[in-house]
Amino acid sequence: MKAEILSIGDELLIGQTINTNASWMGEQLNLIGAGLERVTTITDTREAILVGLKTATGRSQVVLITGGLGPTKDDITKYTLCEFFGTRLVRNPEVLARVEDYFTKRGRTMLETNRQQADLPESCTVLPNELGTASGMWFEREGCIVVSLPGVPYEMKHLMETQVLPRLKKQFSLPAIVHRTALTQGIGESFLAEIIRDWENELRSAGLSLAYLPSPGIVRLRITAKGEIREELERKVSEFEAKLLPLIDAYYYGNDNDKLEDVLGKIMLENKLTLATAESCTGGFIAHRITSVPGSSAYFLGSVVSYSNNVKIRQLNVSPESISEYGAVSQEVVEQMAKGVQQLLHADCSIAVSGVAGPDGGSEDKPVGTVWIAVCYKDKIYSRKFLFEKDRERNITRAALTGMMVLRQLILGKIPA
Amino acid sequence: MKAEILSIGDELLIGQTINTNASWMGEQLNLIGAGLERVTTITDTREAILVGLKTATGRSQVVLITGGLGPTKDDITKYTLCEFFGTRLVRNPEVLARVEDYFTKRGRTMLETNRQQADLPESCTVLPNELGTASGMWFEREGCIVVSLPGVPYEMKHLMETQVLPRLKKQFSLPAIVHRTALTQGIGESFLAEIIRDWENELRSAGLSLAYLPSPGIVRLRITAKGEIREELERKVSEFEAKLLPLIDAYYYGNDNDKLEDVLGKIMLENKLTLATAESCTGGFIAHRITSVPGSSAYFLGSVVSYSNNVKIRQLNVSPESISEYGAVSQEVVEQMAKGVQQLLHADCSIAVSGVAGPDGGSEDKPVGTVWIAVCYKDKIYSRKFLFEKDRERNITRAALTGMMVLRQLILGKIPA
Repeated sequence: MKAEILSIGDELLIGQTINTNASWMGEQLNLIGAGLERVTTITDTREAILVGLKTATGRSQVVLITGGLGPTKDDITKYTLCEFFGTRLVRNPEVLARVEDYFTKRGRTMLETNRQQADLPESCTVLPNELGTASGMWFEREGCIVVSLPGVPYEMKHLMETQVLPRLKKQFSLPAIVHRTALTQGIGESFLAEIIRDWENELRSAGLSLAYLPSPGIVRLRITAKGEIREELERKVSEFEAKLLPLIDAYYYGNDNDKLEDVLGKIMLENKLTLATAESCTGGFIAHRITSVPGSSAYFLGSVVSYSNNVKIRQLNVSPESISEYGAVSQEVVEQMAKGVQQLLHADCSIAVSGVAGPDGGSEDKPVGTVWIAVCYKDKIYSRKFLFEKDRERNITRAALTGMMVLRQLILGKIPA
Repeated sequence: MKAEILSIGDELLIGQTINTNASWMGEQLNLIGAGLERVTTITDTREAILVGLKTATGRSQVVLITGGLGPTKDDITKYTLCEFFGTRLVRNPEVLARVEDYFTKRGRTMLETNRQQADLPESCTVLPNELGTASGMWFEREGCIVVSLPGVPYEMKHLMETQVLPRLKKQFSLPAIVHRTALTQGIGESFLAEIIRDWENELRSAGLSLAYLPSPGIVRLRITAKGEIREELERKVSEFEAKLLPLIDAYYYGNDNDKLEDVLGKIMLENKLTLATAESCTGGFIAHRITSVPGSSAYFLGSVVSYSNNVKIRQLNVSPESISEYGAVSQEVVEQMAKGVQQLLHADCSIAVSGVAGPDGGSEDKPVGTVWIAVCYKDKIYSRKFLFEKDRERNITRAALTGMMVLRQLILGKIPA
């Protein structure tokens, strides 16, 4: 099956928006064994869209389009699709009801432009969008499928997951493909490659492939097997995975789409533990990550973001002498922060971070990227100094991930208290 | 001048790497008045590259290619360019000297594959790469320019800035182009369109264009003018901007790349104010956004993330009776949170949020998306209920942005206390 994407939008061409949609869609297509051959980004003019549609439908079996479905005048995808497919807009009563409901629930006045979101091409199958007012549209003509999706990422993803991918899997006989991803935290790509070298050679000899997918603080290792018989591939992948895990035990925390905050949350629930954080340089980012998990209120009590030293002293009971003697970025202070918030919020576990996120504030002794992390698990405490990078955002992310990972390891007995 | 980009690389199509290069290049071309008409991302096979080159050179005057120039076997761009332009590789002595120097300085052993980086097509102008071993290549044939650049972002950017953009500016007489973006918070795209309809019609009649660029909680309005004389365009854009701002005063917070947290930070610094947050459903996200700004420690004192009611009561001095009578998501509680954190951390200003982020926890009375926000500015307090969406992440983002915006408006006297 040959698929391509047409991304519509001037904002993509002038660098105002990065085309993350195409990237995510490519990944999803790949995961179901459907190859993406091409992504074309074009301006939102009638001419460009028509040329794009003609070229794409002439060579691909599936064309996925994003963008240009908003209610305003500059969104012309729908009209151009009508022209291309020789059809006309008709008001769809179910979509109209949903759009009206969307506005009623929000107590907002509905405008005629909003109502027009329910005008959809007569010849398409409407893909209902439960998260917004722009519907997806599924066209078929001469063996080619054209799907138009809204450009808003979460609406596009929702429609892909609930409608487009299931339909494609049904309509095409795609090769069997099995992916398994092992997630690691706290080790760089090249060091990981060194540790698993023999295993990787053996894997490749067996006809499987491996991808290293790095992001700040995390390397995902994705094993892929392609072939005819899914069960056979599953067996092979599981076999190699079983050999991999002992090699990376010190860094491994989960599989596939697990997030560290999900993993930590499950440990909290399973062990009936409660959690609090005390954050200086991460500025609330750990609490944010933890509370991004639905249901985290069952174990997360709260956080004290102690950006100023006064807050460290008054709220977290850090000794002013320790701050003046060792500095706020020190083992003494970060351990007092961890114990302080644990006691203050009556939590079983805590994570505390104090560091120099940058770009300013570094010294010879404590350059930008120096971060002290302490974690408490009941009466156990563990602390360690890390040296991350020069970049503020990456330092905040890596400190947050490391804090969560270190707490996981302490609770599971993988590091000594 | 018609330009397009050919991005080469499987990693871009399977979602392993996001095509940030194309986005950055588009922005740079736009800034010099050279329109980018299209970006095509293709696999790194000979066939795909040849088809891509043929199609692109047939319709554009400038084709910029990235990727596929590494030293390994799977990097075939150079060979395919030779085939396309009917030329051959010759070893370039200056490039060879630089590649050798590159390895010597890093104390690394040089392999024959590294030396081959100095083999370049005979018919191209070599663009020296001072940051890596893959040279840029500039071809011209039948009025079409084809430039091949390495895919490593900082090497590509360096070659663009030092070589490609200056050469393009010299070779083409480019139109002047002026963009100005006004940023709004707290109003949807279609309502904004309603408010500025007459202005927008006038703008379009004057030959300027307007784009609505929405993201959760924010709509950016981008005015664009193209023409001959930059000063004339600047004047036109400023004139229309001046008429726009009074219309959107209740929602406007900045221009171009301003972030709300930057804008709020500047207000804090200019007025010598300090800030604290008390966060329930945003779970530390407001503190995170505020502390993502370098230097925010000058005004941000800290936050109490009061996820549990006990933390609201014990740390923030919220009355247990208010919680049991009105619920944690209520005007009474959120106002007590705002005052509580203001007093606790001795801050001039505070932002407090309590809401139902979802997906669970909603009721008929307080459905998912219900968020109470209170802000304090010295002895003034303002609070309001909002109804956002069904999606947890978007609710957190919108609540955070709204909290910052409401505080801005209160300090600037744009809403009554």
